[in-house]
Formats: sequence, C-alpha cells, structure tokens
Amino acid sequence: MCGLGGRRSPFVATPGNLVSSGMDPIPVFDAEAVFAAVPAEMAIERTRLAFERHARGEWVMPPKVYVEAPPEGDFRAMPARGDGFALLKWVTSFPHNPERGRPVVIGALLLSSAQTGELLAIMECGSVTSLRTGAAAAVSAQLLARDDARTVGVIGCGVNGRWAARCLAAAGYGPGICADVRPEAAVELADELGWRSGPREEAADQDVVVTVTPGERPVVLTSDLREGQHIAALGADAKGKGEVELDALGRCRLFCDEWEQASRGGELSGAVAAGRLSRQDVTDVGDVILGRKPGRLSAGDVTLFDSTGLAIQDLAIAIAVYEAWSRGEVEGPEVRL
Amino acid sequence: MCGLGGRRSPFVATPGNLVSSGMDPIPVFDAEAVFAAVPAEMAIERTRLAFERHARGEWVMPPKVYVEAPPEGDFRAMPARGDGFALLKWVTSFPHNPERGRPVVIGALLLSSAQTGELLAIMECGSVTSLRTGAAAAVSAQLLARDDARTVGVIGCGVNGRWAARCLAAAGYGPGICADVRPEAAVELADELGWRSGPREEAADQDVVVTVTPGERPVVLTSDLREGQHIAALGADAKGKGEVELDALGRCRLFCDEWEQASRGGELSGAVAAGRLSRQDVTDVGDVILGRKPGRLSAGDVTLFDSTGLAIQDLAIAIAVYEAWSRGEVEGPEVRL
Repeated sequence: MCGLGGRRSPFVATPGNLVSSGMDPIPVFDAEAVFAAVPAEMAIERTRLAFERHARGEWVMPPKVYVEAPPEGDFRAMPARGDGFALLKWVTSFPHNPERGRPVVIGALLLSSAQTGELLAIMECGSVTSLRTGAAAAVSAQLLARDDARTVGVIGCGVNGRWAARCLAAAGYGPGICADVRPEAAVELADELGWRSGPREEAADQDVVVTVTPGERPVVLTSDLREGQHIAALGADAKGKGEVELDALGRCRLFCDEWEQASRGGELSGAVAAGRLSRQDVTDVGDVILGRKPGRLSAGDVTLFDSTGLAIQDLAIAIAVYEAWSRGEVEGPEVRL
Repeated sequence: MCGLGGRRSPFVATPGNLVSSGMDPIPVFDAEAVFAAVPAEMAIERTRLAFERHARGEWVMPPKVYVEAPPEGDFRAMPARGDGFALLKWVTSFPHNPERGRPVVIGALLLSSAQTGELLAIMECGSVTSLRTGAAAAVSAQLLARDDARTVGVIGCGVNGRWAARCLAAAGYGPGICADVRPEAAVELADELGWRSGPREEAADQDVVVTVTPGERPVVLTSDLREGQHIAALGADAKGKGEVELDALGRCRLFCDEWEQASRGGELSGAVAAGRLSRQDVTDVGDVILGRKPGRLSAGDVTLFDSTGLAIQDLAIAIAVYEAWSRGEVEGPEVRL
C-alpha cells in the first residue's frame, strides 16, 4: 500500500532527511488537491485496507477527543498511526454553520513520519473526511450487501452524502434515488450521477440505503425495512444522534466500524445505552474483511453498518494523498514550519 | 487579553468572515515568527493568565492523548479552548532525535475560532512549547520563590532549558549557574545571559533551581536541598520520568500545573503510584494565583513546581502570536486549505 516512490520517503534515511531537523518545507493540500490525488476507487481500496490493518492490530488509534464549543458544536482531535505514518485530524462539527455560509466540517489534518517525527504534509480535512466517509459506505456495501444488490437510496445529499453516492457509483452500484429535505440538493446529485431524486420513502426502499443526515431524527423507520437490504448509516457520529428507529435496529444484523467508538457515540449508542444492544450483537467490519467473523448470513438479512468515522480511515486517505504528491501527481504550496 | 485589533477578528461577524467558508488563506508561522511575536515577558504574562483562566474554569482542556511510536517515542495531541479560540497541538517527544540531528519536539499547532470553527493559523510548535515551558518556570518562581530569591541554577541547557533561563532572566532573576552533561551547551547559555557554567551540584544550590532534562535519572538529590529554595521541575512530562529524588519530594511543599495530568505522568507520578503522595499533598498553581490556596508558607519551605506542560499554556502563546499578526507585527506566508 505504501511504497513511496518519487520525491521523498519517511522510511529511508537519506542525507536529506537526516539533516532536515523537521525544517524541510512541507506541502499544503487544499480540498481540490486532495480530490485530485485520490479518486473514489482509490478511496474505497484504501479505506478497506485501513479497516483490515486496524483489525490486525497493525494500525492504532486512541479514542477521538472532543472539545465542546457551545453553542456551535465541538472540535475533535483524531490521532492514528500506521505504516510508518502518524496522523492528527483537527476538525469541527458545527451543525448550524451552513446557515451562515460555512461548512459543518472545518479543519486540517497533519501527517507526520512515525519514524522521524517530521511533519510531512498539511491537508484540508473536509475533503479527506468526505472521501473516507463515502468510501466506507461503499466498502460496507461490497462486504455486506447481497451480491445482486444494485439500486441505491441516498438520504441526505450534503457533502458527505454526495461522496457516498459517488463512491457507491464508482463501486458499480446504481441507479439510485436521492432524497433530501432540500429538494435542490437531491436534484443536483441525481443529475450528476444520472440517478433520480425522490421522496425519503422511495430512497429507503432501495437495495443499498445510505443515510447521511445530521442524525437529529430517524430517517429509516421500521416500516421501511425490506428483506435483503443493506443500510449504511453514516450521519450519526456523536452521542444522542441517530438515523434509524430503535425498533428497526432490532431487526437488522448489525456491523460497525469500531465497537469502542460506535457504542459510545453513533447510530448504535442509543440502543446500547438503553440496554438493548451489547458487544456480541455487533460485528466490526474489519473482522468480516479478515474472515474472522461472518457478514451477511442469509439473503433475507437486513444488514446495517454504523459508520462513526475513524482516524485510521483519515490516515489511509492522507497517506494516499502524500504518495500521490511523492509521485509528482499533485502539487501544493510548500511552507516551512 | 484578547482584544484583536487589526486585520481580522474571530469575534465580530464581518462580511469577510460570514462568507469565508473556512477558505480564507491562513498564516503559517515558523519558529522565528513565533519568537518575534512573543517576547519572554509576554510569554510569562500569558502563561500566568492561562493558569488563572483554567483555574476559573473559563479555559478548558481534555487530557492530552498519546500515540506511541516505538521505538522512537510518542506523538501527543493536545487540545484546548478559551477566549473564543480552540487549539490543537500535535507534537512529538522523540528523545533520541538529537542523535540524528533532529529536535526532540517536532510538530505543528492549529489555532481555530471557537465561534466559527474556522482555522485561523498554523504554527511551528517547538517554539510555542519552549516559550510556554520556560515561561511556566518564571511564573512558578514569581509565585512561589522567596521574595529575596535571586540566583538561578539551570540543570539541562537544551532548547527548553535555554528558554527557562531566558524567561527567569526576563523576570529579573539571576545571575545563574548553567549545568549540562554537554559542557558546551552550558557555556553557550551562560555566555548569552552573562551567567556562569558550573557543575550540577552548584546549580542545585541556587535560590531558584530549574531542571529541564530528559527525566531519565534524578538531578536534584535529597542532599542538594537547602531551606528556602524553589525548584521548577520541567523535564518530566510522561510516565516513568523524574528529575527529583523521591525522598527529596517528601521534603518539599508541592505544586503542579494540573493535578489530573501531573499525577499520571510527570515528576510527581512516581510518588503517586508508590502511594507516597495524594491529591491533598499537591496544589495547582492556578489556585495559588487565584488566592484560593496558599503558596509558600514560610521562608524555610522548599517549594517544588512540577510542570508537565498544558495545552492551555500553548493556547495562551498561540493567541499572542495570532494577535501580533492581527496587529501587523509579524508576518507569515498564507496558505489556502
């Protein structure tokens, strides 16, 4: 995954990095550079690898740390280490920012060499977040949806919903129904992918259903479920958020990105707090990827993947961006720190 | 403390920041710019304010998060919020890096607006760390040393030891004795300040003694202590590190930057783990600043301040840098994220 050709490598002691003192200029990548460096297919592949390496214990990640910033939301510090790199993502979740013309997710991502400690790159983090969030939906569908699953329902067509749809399309899923409380957002996404916009109920009736809403109220109801579906719930990423009705969860075969994080804040955490779910009811997708645990057991299962968003996923995307830069495929202004 | 004049302010909604979408170019400050923006006197004043605001509960700081990076050391993610700003410091402690021509402390610091979530600045973090670490030694001396304390002993003349000496000098202390296992480092610092280099024992015999070593073995022994001294132990910042003999600790009136952090990793943590110290034996300096708790009780007390290094101190320095930039006093290249 991480063979670094090209400009420089944190793995090999060259005269250049022996004398660098952390003072070499480092590249800064804006969202445009991140998206140019990592197409959807690569984001999916790297995200799957992140889940796998984490499940093997090769990539490590302490729990993310929240800094409350009332009344707007919170900041999150998300560190991870793997494949010779260390990463820190510093990111807001300010849900009402769009009302003031600003994104919900703002911040930066710092990529360092875990061997030398040197800072290697600074990246815009909304783009990395969108890629790894959207890619996780596609990874979960490839892993858990029925082999004959094709159609997609996207509930919530904001920035991360759009990337989930793009990644699912890149993985061969579609056509899809795009639903959003802002009809113009649904239409725009549908037009981009050659899909169709429609009501929430119709989106919830597709083979693969992705929810990417603020998680303030359920958007997948018990009455929506049909046999054989796969649901990727991406929106709930903190305590008190949820996109799927509690009773509906009880009818699903449940998967998550990481139990530790998902049980504390995410789609499943409400049911965990209510004593309706415990560890043995939920499988980490990394364990399914490794073949340690089963995924879908029958064609009739409704599988549900709770994505809370892991720093190891950000790490996977950040490494891919850095490698693309090392190969000379993308550029960014360089600064000296 | 944080009245922002000049170029832009995160506190006031102007057309500029209403439409900024986190996409305004932001300044990047290298170590030179940080040191130019914040002279030692200002670092001391801001560090004292950080302790005070934290003690009042106005500035908040979750525990720092460690990411182990064996065999070199670890990375730390240190978030904080206060006065309308949020901060994340991402920094290494790679103790053997100097053997390879690299600093122990490498990384970057991200300053955001806690009101809008916007990233405001990126800074080199070794410089911020040095300023706030050195300044903490001076704050502790002003607060806890005897009024007639003058002479300084510096044990460990690396980068943070130098800044401790500079801050103590700026606070009116001196002359001093500089000691280091590398005699040339001690001579260089002594020359800069018009002080003198000397053996460890002599440095440990001064009115104010600052230790800034890797913390791998005690450099202040029980036999060194004399009545009325003040000791600032700055070097031990993680589990298993210590610069002061356990028996010597028992003879001191003890203070720390924050019990929560200091009891888990720092000068006092060994004694805490051994059951020889507990919460009531140690006073946070913020409580002394606020007058909630007494400092030195008698002229004969040996006071000891355990500095483990707090993200709120970094925040105080980072705000000062940002304000200096807002006033047009320092410059940094601007990048778009």
